[in-house]
Amino acid sequence: MQAEIITIGDEILIGQIVDTNSAWMATELNSIGVNIAQITSISDTPEHLVEALNNARKRADVVLITGGLGPTKDDRTKKVLTEYFGSELILHEPTLQNVIEMFRLRGLDIIQLNKDQALVPKCCQVLLNKQGTAPGMWFEDDNVVFVSMPGVPFEMKYLMTEHVLPRLAAMRNDLHIVHRTIQTVGISESFLARTLETWEDNLPEYIHLAYLPSPGIIRLRLSAFGPDATVLENEVNAQVEKLQTIIPDAIYGYGNDKLSDVTGNLLKAINAKVSVAESCTGGLISHLITSVPGSSKWFKGAVVAYSNEVKSNLLQVSESSLCEFGAVSESVVRQMAEGVKIALNSEYSIATSGVAGPDGGTPEKPVGTVWIAVSGPKETVAKCFTFSNNRERNIERTSLTALDMLRLMLLQNQ
Amino acid sequence: MQAEIITIGDEILIGQIVDTNSAWMATELNSIGVNIAQITSISDTPEHLVEALNNARKRADVVLITGGLGPTKDDRTKKVLTEYFGSELILHEPTLQNVIEMFRLRGLDIIQLNKDQALVPKCCQVLLNKQGTAPGMWFEDDNVVFVSMPGVPFEMKYLMTEHVLPRLAAMRNDLHIVHRTIQTVGISESFLARTLETWEDNLPEYIHLAYLPSPGIIRLRLSAFGPDATVLENEVNAQVEKLQTIIPDAIYGYGNDKLSDVTGNLLKAINAKVSVAESCTGGLISHLITSVPGSSKWFKGAVVAYSNEVKSNLLQVSESSLCEFGAVSESVVRQMAEGVKIALNSEYSIATSGVAGPDGGTPEKPVGTVWIAVSGPKETVAKCFTFSNNRERNIERTSLTALDMLRLMLLQNQ
Repeated sequence: MQAEIITIGDEILIGQIVDTNSAWMATELNSIGVNIAQITSISDTPEHLVEALNNARKRADVVLITGGLGPTKDDRTKKVLTEYFGSELILHEPTLQNVIEMFRLRGLDIIQLNKDQALVPKCCQVLLNKQGTAPGMWFEDDNVVFVSMPGVPFEMKYLMTEHVLPRLAAMRNDLHIVHRTIQTVGISESFLARTLETWEDNLPEYIHLAYLPSPGIIRLRLSAFGPDATVLENEVNAQVEKLQTIIPDAIYGYGNDKLSDVTGNLLKAINAKVSVAESCTGGLISHLITSVPGSSKWFKGAVVAYSNEVKSNLLQVSESSLCEFGAVSESVVRQMAEGVKIALNSEYSIATSGVAGPDGGTPEKPVGTVWIAVSGPKETVAKCFTFSNNRERNIERTSLTALDMLRLMLLQNQ
Repeated sequence: MQAEIITIGDEILIGQIVDTNSAWMATELNSIGVNIAQITSISDTPEHLVEALNNARKRADVVLITGGLGPTKDDRTKKVLTEYFGSELILHEPTLQNVIEMFRLRGLDIIQLNKDQALVPKCCQVLLNKQGTAPGMWFEDDNVVFVSMPGVPFEMKYLMTEHVLPRLAAMRNDLHIVHRTIQTVGISESFLARTLETWEDNLPEYIHLAYLPSPGIIRLRLSAFGPDATVLENEVNAQVEKLQTIIPDAIYGYGNDKLSDVTGNLLKAINAKVSVAESCTGGLISHLITSVPGSSKWFKGAVVAYSNEVKSNLLQVSESSLCEFGAVSESVVRQMAEGVKIALNSEYSIATSGVAGPDGGTPEKPVGTVWIAVSGPKETVAKCFTFSNNRERNIERTSLTALDMLRLMLLQNQ
């Protein structure tokens, strides 16, 4: 099955935003065996959209359109689609109720512009959008499926996950596909590739391996294609078992597991809690932890000790250590970890202190130098890392590495 | 002058990489008044490239092609272009010397595959690539310019900056483009659209307005097109001034300004510092603040008080208030703001407490109920909000709203 993606709107064409939607959609479509033939970004003019639709339908079985569906008048997509499919706009009552309910929950006044979002082309099947006011629309025309969705990433992702991907997967029954995603942390892509080379070369021909890297985390995706789902499942399981013996520590989870979630489950299992003392990570570790619903069961809280005064006053870091060794040092990060454990009354703790950049580097401690400590009932472990010269990535890698150090300590203590 | 971008290669189509090249190119091209009509990502097959070239030349004066030029055999672009322009491959001696020199510098052995990169179509002008081994190629055919560049970001950027942008800028003196982005916070898209309706309807025909929404923040973009750059600049400035009188409080910045950055500059101007007490936002406010380089000049730190125990012990919230009113209450959020100001010794503070969801809602305090307080030298202000039923967005909107409340307090205190 061939698909194409059309994104509408000037933001991408003038370079104001990077098109991350298409990459996400392509990954998800690939995972159900749908191949992307082309991705096209066009401006928000009727002529250009019609031309893009006409070109795409020549090549593709499915055309996915994002953008151009907000309440404001620079969004003309719905009218163009209504004309393109020779239909007319009618009111879709469930969408109207959804819009009214969303405004009621937010305590906002509703105006006609919002209610108009419930007008849809008569010929389409409406995909109810519980994350926003613009509905998704599914059209079928001459054996080609066209789906229109809003361009706001979380609304598009909701409609894809809840409606579009299941429908597309159901449309094809000739070929079975088994995917397995393995989440790894703490190994670089090139080192991972070298470590896995022999295993990869010996994979059966019908199993494909993809590396999906992001800062600190590399996902490995196995995709098996064939006529017999059971054969695929068994072979993929066997390959994952082999992988576990090659990189046992680096694998922290599967599928969409988050590192903070996995670590939290280990804490919950022993009914222990963690607290965090953040200097260079500035709150990101806490944010990653609290992004997980239910994290209050294992997370006490944190002290973001951005100034030395806070390190001394709230975490009892000694002023002489700060003077003698500097904030970015083993001595200080250990005291931070031990101090926050006492101040917040938890069994485990994490502490970070580093030079995130772009300023603050010295010849001895260049930008990217980071100390991380984790502390448990038995011991405190501290390690020094040298990451990159990019502030954003230093903060992200430090946060993930710190969570991983806690995970490994919890596994050892089991 | 109209341009189109064609990117070649499966990495984008399978979602393995996000296409950041196109956004960079679009921004640079816009800055010299070149308008991007379409961005197309295609697979590395000859038929698909020829089709994309044929479609692009109908609409554009300039077609920029990236990707498909590496030494490995899955890169077929050069051969397809040679045939497409009815030419033949010849050796380009300066490119060969460049390739040899690059391998010598890296201490690597050179093989025929590398030397072949110096073969170019006879009809093109070669753009010497001092950052890599694949040269850029400039073709002119029936008044349309085609430029082929490697897809490696720093090589593409080198060729664009050194060769392509100067040449294109020299080619055009007919049309100018002026963009201005206005950042707003605290008003929903539909309410903003209604408030700005009259102003928008009275915009000159050559100025276009676009709404670029994201959770909590809506960017407005004015784009003006015309022959006289000064006229455009003046008219856009006049329209922005009008806008400032319509929504003075909602505009927090321009261009790529971040809310945390703008708020920090207000604090720096009065040499004051802020501290944060985060419950439902769980560290995100601190993370947004510390994402800004230099934020240590105005940010003391934070207490992420995820448990009531931390609220009492570190922030001196009274246990009777926690019992009587609950953690999500005006009384508690005020005490958190005032407590963190004292504990971390700052002039200003922010506090949040709310039901982020998905669990924890009650009939009186459903998911999305959030109390925010900001405290300064003169007073503490607390407000209650009802956001959505989505945890991630509740955390994000609470964080941005809290920063905005601090910004407004700082403006009032000026």
